[in-house]
Amino acid sequence: MTRSAADALLAGNRTTLATYDAKHFGWSVNAGVATVTLNRPERKNPLTFESYAELRDLFRQLAYATDVKTVVIHGADENFCSGGDVHEIIGPLIDLPMPELLLFTRMTGDLVKAMRHCPQPIIAAIDGVCAGAGAILAMASDMRLSTARSKLAFLFSRVGLAGCDMGACSILPRIIGQGRAAELLYTGRSASGEEGYAWGFYNRLCAPEALLDEALKLAADLVAGPTFAHGITKKMLHQEWSMSIDEAIESEAQAQAICMTTRDFERAYRAFAAKSRPVFEGD
Amino acid sequence: MTRSAADALLAGNRTTLATYDAKHFGWSVNAGVATVTLNRPERKNPLTFESYAELRDLFRQLAYATDVKTVVIHGADENFCSGGDVHEIIGPLIDLPMPELLLFTRMTGDLVKAMRHCPQPIIAAIDGVCAGAGAILAMASDMRLSTARSKLAFLFSRVGLAGCDMGACSILPRIIGQGRAAELLYTGRSASGEEGYAWGFYNRLCAPEALLDEALKLAADLVAGPTFAHGITKKMLHQEWSMSIDEAIESEAQAQAICMTTRDFERAYRAFAAKSRPVFEGD
Amino acid sequence: MTRSAADALLAGNRTTLATYDAKHFGWSVNAGVATVTLNRPERKNPLTFESYAELRDLFRQLAYATDVKTVVIHGADENFCSGGDVHEIIGPLIDLPMPELLLFTRMTGDLVKAMRHCPQPIIAAIDGVCAGAGAILAMASDMRLSTARSKLAFLFSRVGLAGCDMGACSILPRIIGQGRAAELLYTGRSASGEEGYAWGFYNRLCAPEALLDEALKLAADLVAGPTFAHGITKKMLHQEWSMSIDEAIESEAQAQAICMTTRDFERAYRAFAAKSRPVFEGD
Repeated sequence: MTRSAADALLAGNRTTLATYDAKHFGWSVNAGVATVTLNRPERKNPLTFESYAELRDLFRQLAYATDVKTVVIHGADENFCSGGDVHEIIGPLIDLPMPELLLFTRMTGDLVKAMRHCPQPIIAAIDGVCAGAGAILAMASDMRLSTARSKLAFLFSRVGLAGCDMGACSILPRIIGQGRAAELLYTGRSASGEEGYAWGFYNRLCAPEALLDEALKLAADLVAGPTFAHGITKKMLHQEWSMSIDEAIESEAQAQAICMTTRDFERAYRAFAAKSRPVFEGD
Repeated sequence: MTRSAADALLAGNRTTLATYDAKHFGWSVNAGVATVTLNRPERKNPLTFESYAELRDLFRQLAYATDVKTVVIHGADENFCSGGDVHEIIGPLIDLPMPELLLFTRMTGDLVKAMRHCPQPIIAAIDGVCAGAGAILAMASDMRLSTARSKLAFLFSRVGLAGCDMGACSILPRIIGQGRAAELLYTGRSASGEEGYAWGFYNRLCAPEALLDEALKLAADLVAGPTFAHGITKKMLHQEWSMSIDEAIESEAQAQAICMTTRDFERAYRAFAAKSRPVFEGD
Repeated sequence: MTRSAADALLAGNRTTLATYDAKHFGWSVNAGVATVTLNRPERKNPLTFESYAELRDLFRQLAYATDVKTVVIHGADENFCSGGDVHEIIGPLIDLPMPELLLFTRMTGDLVKAMRHCPQPIIAAIDGVCAGAGAILAMASDMRLSTARSKLAFLFSRVGLAGCDMGACSILPRIIGQGRAAELLYTGRSASGEEGYAWGFYNRLCAPEALLDEALKLAADLVAGPTFAHGITKKMLHQEWSMSIDEAIESEAQAQAICMTTRDFERAYRAFAAKSRPVFEGD
């Protein structure tokens, strides 16, 4: 491939998102860390048809973003997200014909798919209410930091729906175990921060005032790591979900061999040999 | 479809079980909650060829029962179930030819399949001994309440068999993790109530005298919920077991769209708008 | 099949390993328990190209060994294994062409496959450093005993690589949950013995001076059990990894029916009827 052909390849598959002007939530990019702020605090940061669609489109764009290496998602003030807005989502759904209902459930599912398909690890910072679709956003992230006072509730059954929303029956059991997931999905009950931590839903509990800083610090640590390799880790965690062990091992042999051709791998070795810390550059 | 054709459809797919006369265990139905009582307490409630077959047939019938919305399974007196009876099951198996052995192992497996395929969530209330096939019945339930003094043992290896009984090598690791499941299945050792709770096998530990009441209370809460949607939750927890994440998300988009056409979903919205509690009716 | 034909079958599928002369690690067999000792303690027992290949070949041979019923793997002195040697593995990999990189990653993956395919349960006894490929050896074992002071680190990201090494993205989440696994694989951070125990990575924490003895005692208990059935348990834990529940139940019906034809099953019943302890012989 000539260099100009390669440039054309890159041009069609690279973008930057630092100046993206988000309409329905806060968005900023700082040193490779993008921050999504769900920001309707007076309603505990609910989602709407518009914010769902914009989040879906943005997470899809992240696959091509060269200036974002990790994403932090959190809520304004002292809550994460109260889920789909009752007036702006649940009410309108009541009268929709089936094709439009499916359009809605596929849109929400596509947001989770986009979160799992973008190469950037996603860190959710969760304080206060984390309910319904908010709990799903937390679940669909790679890691979750929270506070003791947070309240996690997959409350779909409370609004007459099933627990199978946006992948919950597949993903939640793999995070906290099938029995605990069943209870949360059938009953819609709240789980405390301590419970979520004991179950492995949360990676860490933080003081509320330190929560966002700790999430940003963890994100910065990931940005300082081999970000191309992180994207491969994320892809394989997704890809191997329903593979046999033997299939997974062959897939990893190929995926890791790819990573062994990166300069970051060589940088790590050179640094080690020189007894210094490697400086990764993500290529 | 004309109404009379619809009536024919319903007639062939609906039954009631409140007056079912169980031969080999206790059975009662009260306000939508069915209670199965393993009731040979002098032997710690073992299973026999007859009780296996009757349980299998009854759980299959539950798929069509309109008067049962949740099932509680427990043991008489202070034990849950000691598993397959040594004299009535293990002894006779010793001399059987392979086709009849397979008939037996398929029958026991079919009981677990029937428990997973009926739409009603199943709550196991477990005190005392919960061993062998008894541990499997607990595992095959949706939620498990227990006591600190309970003893859980997948003791197949103690009788010269493998741990792969009635789905244990697939289901148990998803509840408590692969490492803990391996230990229980290889060694056959007892796990205490505290261990089972810490591992997520039990959803809650109760005082022995409160155990059945708490299970019935949880069952009543589920009956008061959107029971059609609960059945969809259960089906999807089963259905997505070996799907990829993307497949699961599409399946849930379809399943949840179905639930959005129910009256229970509308009831929940109307109640919310009226600032009252929804009264679900399961349709 | 005539007896002489059967003898030919056995001859081609049976071997003994008690006198195997290991080149790159310690090896001994005692009363059915094989012990693998990673023994370059001055470097915290790293792996090399040679030890990888020899371990792979030996675990493959274990499929045919009649004198080994359980394997214990541990490290000399006070560490388990520091992973792939920086000078003897990472350095040489830097300049390899892709086909040779893939040769390497497949070799390491084949070691995990061989560990999962041999019928003997594998017990890892883990003290001190358990890092990189060392963490993988622990993960690929059936059960893990450890010490409070042990340090578990999947540190691939620290050397510029992805967490998907030798099956880690498939196997680790099933042991400790998807969220905890993601953190360990992305960050490469160390987990303490207490963490690993709380998460179900370790089955037990032991005092350092008692660790190996406890592992050998557990191994001896397994050797005293129905070892043919243990091999079936191990096979089914592997085989059912990505099956649906219904497929798993049918597979277990067949596998357990096989075990019901063994003499060990009959021995257990006879012993029970005679109120004595069964003496299993593994056939």
